[in-house]
This record gives sequence, C-alpha cells and structure tokens, in this order.
Amino acid sequence: MLTRIDHIGIACFDLDRTVEFYRATYGFEVYHSEVNEEQGVREAMLRINATDDGGASYLQLLEPTREDSAVGKWLARNGEGVHHIAFGTADVDGDAEAIRGKGVRVLYDEPRTGSMGSRITFLHPKDCHGVLTELVTSAPPSADHSSVEH
Amino acid sequence: MLTRIDHIGIACFDLDRTVEFYRATYGFEVYHSEVNEEQGVREAMLRINATDDGGASYLQLLEPTREDSAVGKWLARNGEGVHHIAFGTADVDGDAEAIRGKGVRVLYDEPRTGSMGSRITFLHPKDCHGVLTELVTSAPPSADHSSVEH
Repeated sequence: MLTRIDHIGIACFDLDRTVEFYRATYGFEVYHSEVNEEQGVREAMLRINATDDGGASYLQLLEPTREDSAVGKWLARNGEGVHHIAFGTADVDGDAEAIRGKGVRVLYDEPRTGSMGSRITFLHPKDCHGVLTELVTSAPPSADHSSVEH
Repeated sequence: MLTRIDHIGIACFDLDRTVEFYRATYGFEVYHSEVNEEQGVREAMLRINATDDGGASYLQLLEPTREDSAVGKWLARNGEGVHHIAFGTADVDGDAEAIRGKGVRVLYDEPRTGSMGSRITFLHPKDCHGVLTELVTSAPPSADHSSVEH
C-alpha cells in the first residue's frame, strides 16, 4: 500500500547551482547526497517534512553523470523540470507485482537500489497518464547507508 | 517558511478517467473536488498522507475547463504529466514577498483562491530551474469551503 509522497524527482543541468537555488530561495538544506552509477545520476535529497507513516517527503535533485543515462536523455529532450514522482510503501516488491497484475508496465523485473539504500522500481509513464512514477521502500533506519553498494 | 510538500499538480485530458486510474491502481480516493473558474480547471484532490506541520500532501488532478486556460495551453504543448509542485506555508503573503525580494518572479500581485479555500501564488518556472512552483496557505480547518467565492 502506498502511504506517502516519498519524493519529487527534479532533473537539472548543474546540481550545485540547483541546490544553491533551493537553499537561498526557500532555506531547504541537503539531507543526503550520493552518486548512483547504475542510474547514471548525481543527486541531492532535500528533506521537506515528516509523514504520518513514519517516513518523510523529499525533493530529489538529479544531475546526469553521463548523457546516455535516462535522466541525461530526458534533460536533452525536455530541459530542466519535474522528472518523476515517487510514492513510499512498506512493500515495493508486493505493490509492484500487484500493479503489474493490473496491466501497468513495471520497468524493472526486480526492484533496484535507490537513494539512501532504498529499494525502488518505476512504472511506465504512458500507463500512468504521462507521469513517470516510482515506488520506494526506504532502508531500515538502522542501515549504514555509507556501506550500501551502488 | 515552507513546511511541507502540499501537493503535486498533474494535468490530464479527462479528469474522471484519471481519477479512476489512481483509484484502481493505487487505491487513492477523491478527498475533495471543485471547479475553479478563475484558474479554468476542474480538479480532484487525492489525499496521500498527513505531514508534521499539521497539514497534508495531496495529488491535485487538473482538467482544463477551457482551451485558453493556463493548464489547457500547457496540455496542448506538453501532453499529460506533472504541471506544477506546491509547498505549504503558514504565510503565503510574507513568503511570496520575501521570495520576490530575492529576484524570483511571483506571478500574482496578491495571492488568489486555490483548492479548498486556500490562498495561493505561483513562482515563474524560468526562475525555478524549470519547475512551476506554487505556494499555498491552507484555509483554517473551521472554514466552510462550500461558501468560498471562486
């Protein structure tokens, strides 16, 4: 069951400048940053609020590390803007299977590693009224994110 | 101060079909619906989670009521997808003025009426790294939304 807006993924050309825009304009600070080589992105998570399922909502700022990554190709086509939205769930595997069973294309056979050691998958935007939609199960709070392999 | 992701605004061609997609796929139900003639939209709010500032996060599904509305023109250019993001604040007037003072274009001279009797304004996407950004102050919980003039 999807219990929160986990994050809004925003693609940008220059992560440092975009982080600085969000800090200077709104006072939002970087909560976590990492490079995800599999996804081909350098990213910063800005934590905006806590949610009543025990999680939180973030902005995820994404800069491609290579032009042929999904985000790199998207940026070349669309320019900067909202790239995807993500819902949090305690069971990304079960929810992805249930949603696949309703005829919505799930982009990965098995969930992969996302921000902060989470497990993630994506739903095809053409099956979701134009919205690239991610499902996220956060890593347990005790996880040592610095040791997660990317 | 912006204290939550208030909503994600999603433009669609057919509100009823899109509401049904979100219900059938994820189990999200309509919390509120209205027509905002000033904005030229028919909309449905799907409440996803509560937030730790006492508010909540929603998906806002938007169908234009006329082709020459902002959302109508956006849809004709982009097709369905994420139209804007919105941050919640206790003081949209003060925050909009402070942000205007930082050189970000605020689209309204004074905040206008948004969903559920809220006060809203928008920031120019070209000043926000491609993201049309809304600021929202919710109506007090005691407000009778049905009597709010639109």
